[in-house]
Order: sequence, then C-alpha cells, then structure tokens
Amino acid sequence: MSKPARTTEDDNHAVGRKSPAEMADRSTPLMRNHWYVAAWAEEVTRTPLRRQILGDDIVLYRTEAGQAVALHNRCAHRSFPLSRGILKGDRIVCAYHGIEFNPDGSCGWVPSLQSAPRAMRVPSYPLVEQGPFVWIWMGNPDKPDNDKLVQQPWFTGPDWNHVTGYCHMKANYLGLHENLLDLSHFPFVHGAAVGKAEHAEARPKVRVEGNVVHASVLHRDVVLAPEYAAATALVAPVDRLSEQQVPSPAIHVGKAILTDSSDPPQTHLRYIVHCPTPETQTSTHYFWAIARNHALGNERVDAESRAFGAKAFNEDREVLEAIEELVARDGRDDFREKIIRTDEGAILLLRAFARMAAEEAAAHPGTY
Amino acid sequence: MSKPARTTEDDNHAVGRKSPAEMADRSTPLMRNHWYVAAWAEEVTRTPLRRQILGDDIVLYRTEAGQAVALHNRCAHRSFPLSRGILKGDRIVCAYHGIEFNPDGSCGWVPSLQSAPRAMRVPSYPLVEQGPFVWIWMGNPDKPDNDKLVQQPWFTGPDWNHVTGYCHMKANYLGLHENLLDLSHFPFVHGAAVGKAEHAEARPKVRVEGNVVHASVLHRDVVLAPEYAAATALVAPVDRLSEQQVPSPAIHVGKAILTDSSDPPQTHLRYIVHCPTPETQTSTHYFWAIARNHALGNERVDAESRAFGAKAFNEDREVLEAIEELVARDGRDDFREKIIRTDEGAILLLRAFARMAAEEAAAHPGTY
Amino acid sequence: MSKPARTTEDDNHAVGRKSPAEMADRSTPLMRNHWYVAAWAEEVTRTPLRRQILGDDIVLYRTEAGQAVALHNRCAHRSFPLSRGILKGDRIVCAYHGIEFNPDGSCGWVPSLQSAPRAMRVPSYPLVEQGPFVWIWMGNPDKPDNDKLVQQPWFTGPDWNHVTGYCHMKANYLGLHENLLDLSHFPFVHGAAVGKAEHAEARPKVRVEGNVVHASVLHRDVVLAPEYAAATALVAPVDRLSEQQVPSPAIHVGKAILTDSSDPPQTHLRYIVHCPTPETQTSTHYFWAIARNHALGNERVDAESRAFGAKAFNEDREVLEAIEELVARDGRDDFREKIIRTDEGAILLLRAFARMAAEEAAAHPGTY
Repeated sequence: MSKPARTTEDDNHAVGRKSPAEMADRSTPLMRNHWYVAAWAEEVTRTPLRRQILGDDIVLYRTEAGQAVALHNRCAHRSFPLSRGILKGDRIVCAYHGIEFNPDGSCGWVPSLQSAPRAMRVPSYPLVEQGPFVWIWMGNPDKPDNDKLVQQPWFTGPDWNHVTGYCHMKANYLGLHENLLDLSHFPFVHGAAVGKAEHAEARPKVRVEGNVVHASVLHRDVVLAPEYAAATALVAPVDRLSEQQVPSPAIHVGKAILTDSSDPPQTHLRYIVHCPTPETQTSTHYFWAIARNHALGNERVDAESRAFGAKAFNEDREVLEAIEELVARDGRDDFREKIIRTDEGAILLLRAFARMAAEEAAAHPGTY
Repeated sequence: MSKPARTTEDDNHAVGRKSPAEMADRSTPLMRNHWYVAAWAEEVTRTPLRRQILGDDIVLYRTEAGQAVALHNRCAHRSFPLSRGILKGDRIVCAYHGIEFNPDGSCGWVPSLQSAPRAMRVPSYPLVEQGPFVWIWMGNPDKPDNDKLVQQPWFTGPDWNHVTGYCHMKANYLGLHENLLDLSHFPFVHGAAVGKAEHAEARPKVRVEGNVVHASVLHRDVVLAPEYAAATALVAPVDRLSEQQVPSPAIHVGKAILTDSSDPPQTHLRYIVHCPTPETQTSTHYFWAIARNHALGNERVDAESRAFGAKAFNEDREVLEAIEELVARDGRDDFREKIIRTDEGAILLLRAFARMAAEEAAAHPGTY
Repeated sequence: MSKPARTTEDDNHAVGRKSPAEMADRSTPLMRNHWYVAAWAEEVTRTPLRRQILGDDIVLYRTEAGQAVALHNRCAHRSFPLSRGILKGDRIVCAYHGIEFNPDGSCGWVPSLQSAPRAMRVPSYPLVEQGPFVWIWMGNPDKPDNDKLVQQPWFTGPDWNHVTGYCHMKANYLGLHENLLDLSHFPFVHGAAVGKAEHAEARPKVRVEGNVVHASVLHRDVVLAPEYAAATALVAPVDRLSEQQVPSPAIHVGKAILTDSSDPPQTHLRYIVHCPTPETQTSTHYFWAIARNHALGNERVDAESRAFGAKAFNEDREVLEAIEELVARDGRDDFREKIIRTDEGAILLLRAFARMAAEEAAAHPGTY
C-alpha cells in the first residue's frame, strides 16, 4: 500500500496487499529485546507458577522478602520442570533429585555433593514490578534495557483506581495489535452497545515516531454506559478523545479523555492498556488493565469496567482465534490479505515491527 | 503387476506389487479439474455452510432467488471465516469488519469506504445443481468444463425415486475407490446378509476406455432383502447384472439390473452412486445416493435403502479409517502393498488416476 | 564429563555437560538387534493383541498348541490391521478380504485364488517365552541372536515366586534407564518410606564391561516395610547389597541381597527386573517383575511387592513424562543437561548405548 493509495478518495485505489517483506506477520520471529508482562503481581506467590513466554518454559515465584523471581523452568541437571518442586526459603527445590537453585539461577545445594557447583545453574530473567504488572526482560539477561520500560504512574499512584483481566488466546499476538488500532470492527464484533456506526467509518489520525505508532480520534457526543454515567455524573453531551500508542510489541496504551458539558467542564481520564505476551508463535497471553482518575473507591464502577473488558476483549479473542484456525486449515496458498484505509495504523505498526525484528536479528544473529 | 501376472492361473505369479510411479496413492496430489459433490442441495440454505474441499476452506449459501453460491471462506481483508457472518440479501457480510461480498466474490460494500473496491474480492467456485447434488468445480473458476459433468437423469426424472446419505471419513479418498471396485471384501466386511461366497471369488469383467474404468459382473439367483422382495414382488430366481464405471475421481456410478423369472420378466434398475470428495489428503466427504425406477413412493423401500446404505458404507468407512490410522502409525518403511487378481479394476483405476494427475500437473504447473 | 571431573572432590569441577556425540539421547535411533519384552505371557492369547514396538505395528497371538506368534500387523494386500481379524486354527484371517496368514507369516489362503501365493506374506518376528516374559527379536528375523537372551532362572524355577506389572509411559526409554541407575532421586520422588537420606548421597561402585554397565552399593541397617518384615521374620539389623546390571537396552536387572542378624544369618534374594520396550521414540512400554526366593506362596508378600512396584514405578513414570513434555514444549535451544557424580552409572550406560547404536548403524546401514 503506497501512501497515495491510502489517501485517495478513489476507493478502487484504496486497496493494497500486505507485503510480507515489509510487514511483520505470524512467521516473523518473536522479538526478545523487550519487557513483556509475565504475570499479574498477585499471581506470583510462594507457590511456583509455570508460564511459557516467547517459547521459553519459565517458573515464577517470590522470595520470602516478596521479591519476584523468574527462572528457566528446566532443572539444569535432568530437565525436570522446577515448577513441580517446592520452595525452601528463597530457593526452589527440584522434585527429582533435590537440587536447589537460588533466585539468581545459581545452584544453592546438590544433595550428593559437598558444595554447590558453579557450573550447575539455570538462566534467570530480569523482572520489574510496577503496580499490578510483573514485567520480564526476554533479551540478554545481563543487559536489561530499563529505558524500554513503559512508565505508567496511573497504575501505582494514589489518585487512581484500576481493574485487570486476562485471557489465553490461541492466536499469534500481531492480530491483537492490529485489532486494537482498528475502530472499524466495533459495531460488528462488539455489538450495538459499544460499536456505533461512527466507529466503522472513523478515520483516526495516525503517525509513527521512530518505531512508535500513535493514533488519535475525537468522538463527539458519545453515549456512556448507564452504570458509568450514573457513577460519574458527567453532563451530556460528552466528547471522548481517544489516544493510542504502541511503544513496544508488548504493550498498547490507550488513553480516553472524556470532557462533559458542565461549566467549567469536568475531564475524566481512563487508561486502557493491553499487553499481548506471546506464549508461542501461535498463542498469546492477553493481559489488560483499565485505570481511571475518578469514581475512586467506587466498586460498581470497578465491576462495570471489569465486565466491559471481559466481554469486549473476549469477543476480540474469539475473532482472532477463528482467524488463526482458518489460516492453519486453509489449503489455498495464493491468498494475500488486502488492506484498506482503516488499516493505516495497523500497517504502520506491522512495518515498524518488521523493522524492529530485522534490527534485532541483525544485532543478535543466531541466538539471544 | 504385468498383464500375464493378472491372468495366469498359477497363483504364485498372481501377486504383484503396487508401484507408486504408476499408480496413484495417498501422496498423489488431489486433482482439481473435476466437478466434486460439495453438498446435498438441502444442506445449502440461507444459513452459511462451511466445508473444506481439496484443502480449500469454502462457504456455501443460497441467494434470495435460491441460487447456490460457493466462495473461498476467507475474508479478503483479514482472513476471518465468512461462514461466521450473516447474509444480507444475496451478499455475505463478514462478521469482523462488515465487508460485504457478492455471489461472484466481488465486494459489494466496505463500511469505511465510499464505494466497493474492485481489488477486494474473494475467489468464487462454479456450482451446478443436479437433483440432490450440488457439484463444485475446483479447477480454474473461469474455465469450468461442463463436459465433465456426469449426467444422471435418474436423480431428477419423474419416474425415479432416490435416497441419500453422507459420512465423514478420516481416510484418503482413493481407498474408497478401490473398495468400490472390489466385490471380494463383501462377505468379510458386510457380513452374511450382503456378502455371499460368490462375491469373494467373483471375477468382474473390467476394461478401461480413456481414463474411465468399467466393470461388470452377473450374479444369478440372488437373494433379495425381505423388505425389498416384498415391496417389489419380484419372482425368484432373480439375476442381478452389476455395472460400474468411474468417470472421474469424484464419482463411482454403480448400476444394478435385476431380472426376475416372471413371464415376461420384470426388470428393475437401481443406481448406486458414490461421491468421495476429498476434504484433505487424509480425509474425505463420502456422499452416496441410491435411485430406483420401481416401488415409487414406497416409503418402506426408501427406509430399507437408507438403512442398507448407512450400514454398509459405514462398515467400509471403518475399514478405510483403520487402514489410514495404521499407515500413519506404522514405522516400517519396507512395506509395499501386494495386488491380486480381484484388484484388477482397482489397479486400472489407480493407473488412470496417476495418468490424470500427471496430466493435470503438466497442464497447470505450480498452482490452480 | 572427563574422568577426573567425575572423581574429584572439588564440586565445582564435579559438573560436566552431556555430550550428544558420545552419549545416547532421545534422538538416538532405537536399537533393533536385541530381544525386547513384547508382552506378558498371559497377555498373548487366542484373541489377537496389537502392540507397537520400536515403531512397528505388531500383532501377537497363540497357536492352538499354545505357541506365541508375532507378525507385522499389516495385511500384505491392503494394509488392514490383522489384529482386527479373527483366528482360524493357527492362522490369522484379515477382516477386509479374508486373506489368511500362517504363524511364519506365509499366506495360507486367498479366497479369490486357487492356492496361497508365496509372494503374499507378512514379516514374522522371532519370539522366545521365558516364564512370564515373551521376548521379541526386532533385528533381522532370519538371524535372532539367542546369545543375547538374558537367562533368568528365578522367573521359571520352582524355588521362586514373582509378581509383575506394566505401565505405558509417554517418554523416551533412556530416561528410565538413567533413573534406574540413580539412587539419588529416591527421597525426592518416592518419599520418606522408600528414599532415605542415604540414597541421595549414596555412591554406588560402577564399572562397565564391554557394553554392560554394573553398579553395586551396600546399605547397612535398612528399614524393611512392615508387611515384608513380618512375613519374612528377618532379625534386625539387616544389610542390603544392591547389584545392578544392564545387559541390553531392553533390560535392567536389579538384585537385592538381604542379610539379617540371625545366627547363622538368613540371606534373602530379590530380583527386581525392569524392561523398557520402546514403543516409539517418545513412548515406552514399561514392564517390571520382582522375583524372590523366600516367603514362597505368601500372598500378602505378593500383594506387598505388587503395591510397592505399582506405586514406585508409577512415580518414576510421572517424572519421566513431565520431562518429556517439557523438552517437547521448551523453546530454548541453548540448553544442555549437566551431569554430576551420582550420574556416573547413567553416563557409562549412555556412552555404551551410543557405541552400540553406532555399531548397529555401521553393521546394518539403511534398514533392518
């Protein structure tokens, strides 16, 4: 899709073809040099949690002091899953031969030896905890890039409330990124309550800075969910400015700014954050969270947010799983997806991801 | 198997080996330039029907005027299965972004655009409806070869009745063709009621004209199923002349001519038609139908025919699935099937199919 | 792992890496020139038994005279599983076309031919029955090497009793061999009743003669299971000398010699025999048997032995299946298992198996 093709009003020229050479697709290697959500903070406890991320089998737990730990879930000795072991102080004990590993992956004890040998160790993964998020660095463990952490004070500050959710998705993570930058599916996938005709025809302003895609769109006179309207006492008509950015393959940050017709106008902020963590090339952990700076402590608004997210994002999951299943099944190899104007943001994103994947492959040839 | 080997009475020379170079087998590419049964007419309705044929994911539905439609079941935009959408007049509407496609695969509407772009289209498949059969052309959609349609007036004419059946078979379709040209399995697979000792030793006359295999065999003094005998009032003894032909990979036509001992003799015709439509290389849609020119309107004979087909053809399915499962599992790679005289028709067929597949590959190198 | 690495007391040098070039692993081709346990004698009856061994689909049955028979479970004619057929005298009858095969694999009858053709035959497998064991030769059927049969008079002699057990294991068979030469997992996998601290730190004496690995260890003052102690009236303290040897990939023979403190001392023998028969590269038939020369006819000791084996060996199975599942799932390809001193016997074994596999590949290039 050339630039004119996206902007011309001649619709017969408004359709292009996805080009695998230029755009990331489900065969693009997963990118390691990023922070991904490994788990919700509340999932990481004194009971080992097994989770596969970017293909790696990983075990998560907390030290006695509460520090989150992530290790390769494969005993260095005989490949037994450490997640089936128990914790002994800050160490995880393999349930096959009793070998103990420290939070840094070094060996703390081998029952049959006099001391803990240095050569016996499992890879550890750098973690950073931010409010409900436990971020994991999947690149070189000796060089986590903290500048790549997305700062999200609205999930940690006292003037904010948030809710969270999760679903497992049998689909490549890129489809979710495309979906999130695309308002035009709202009325078809999410039904009349969420998707208005305005969505299908909406043309967000999109731009890319470096490899970060930004999109924004203003909707005037939006209809609020009744629960939400009641709880917030916003005065109609209400305008909603939606701003989106995708700072990394691991996170899509949506910001909604609601401005009502009071005098002076009330302004409410919501952050709707989506974190697709690839499990494998064809499956994804979908973490999402919604933060707000109003109706603080209001449990009905919490419940409304949770129900909204659970319903809408599950509808997206069903769509993306249906596509993944079809692609795996369909035998026609002459197919190439077409792109239209509403895909502008998604296409910029897939191009940015293709560049990032190529850069990573160039910088780390062979392995991580 | 050389010709002498098939005809000598020295049984130690009557056994040959299947030669993959000369005979089609489960690795032979499925043949596209033929009309296959896509569905029973009654299955194609105003509710989209998803069906995989020769590997292609296909959606079938009817226009408001009742015309059957087959499209590639993959939205040209984002690969969502169209079969999960709804019909809007004669168009099918994708349930992801609301893009609408016409019966010819052209785009009728894209919600976010002013008009329907020509470049946005899905492949359509030529269909022909014949009585209960909906035939689909899987070759070049611009060049359906109507001469290849098998004419079957006994499924549409007023002096005939028919019943139909279907089963899904987890096996390559060639095994079914072999099975159908082989009477010798009757007593072992279908039991005493159907298979007589005469079947195991029967030697049909077989010949091939072009690529069409013909077989015929006369059985004297056959025993009829009691229901059937009662309904038709045929006078024993009854002779049955069975004639078979395989005009394409998609259809095996069996014709049974029953002649009784009345004066003058009554002659009853039955057509037993088997249509194996490959779903994938290892699975098959098995459509079958039985037409008769007697006992018209007799529902007990309908029921008897349906029960006969459902029982017998399900027994064949079980056999063919057991073989497919064994072949997939067995680790010995020194195995080569042996052939004997009763395989004569099947071997002629597999050779004809091998020639047809080679011709198709030569004529359409690369793709369809 | 070099030899010094295994013997030094400096634990930081006591850890090595498995070397795929020198040690058999799950990718090493299964070895055919050995006798494997195909079944328990009581499983082989006049009802055909289907079992996959080293990838081959095999059918087992007995002649009218009681002779055990093993044939390739694939009719030479159309690949139908013979195990779905019936026996007719000493022949097995294919349920597709009624072709009959003799115990030696030759054809006994083809319904459509006048005689049984010599070219129509299925491979047969040499079998030897020894007490409860039915051994199958998986190499060249014309050259079974009877010298490779492990003689086990304690399973056939009148002064011995035995019990047997079986479990199916979704794991490569090598892990079981490693597990059996490794006492150090006892307290972690089998719990306090079986595994003592002494096991984790035990250092058996190991040696290899030719390709046969031997290990032995003496445990003083062992605690016996209460049932066992009561039935045998051994006087504490009791010493147990454990001797193990692995004469082939198909069998691990454990011998336990219990000596009590009577005057003169009583000496009890137990043979604990493990026979891992590879089903495929990733699954194993695990046959085990325990023989004893005391408490003869004592059904409570039988029950205790059976319960001990069923519990302990099922625990091993769970461990080995968890490893197999992890290895299949884990995406990290930079992993290499580490070895420690307690692996000494296992490493000698994996090296011996690597040599044997290489010798077999050199002697029988291509096929069996």
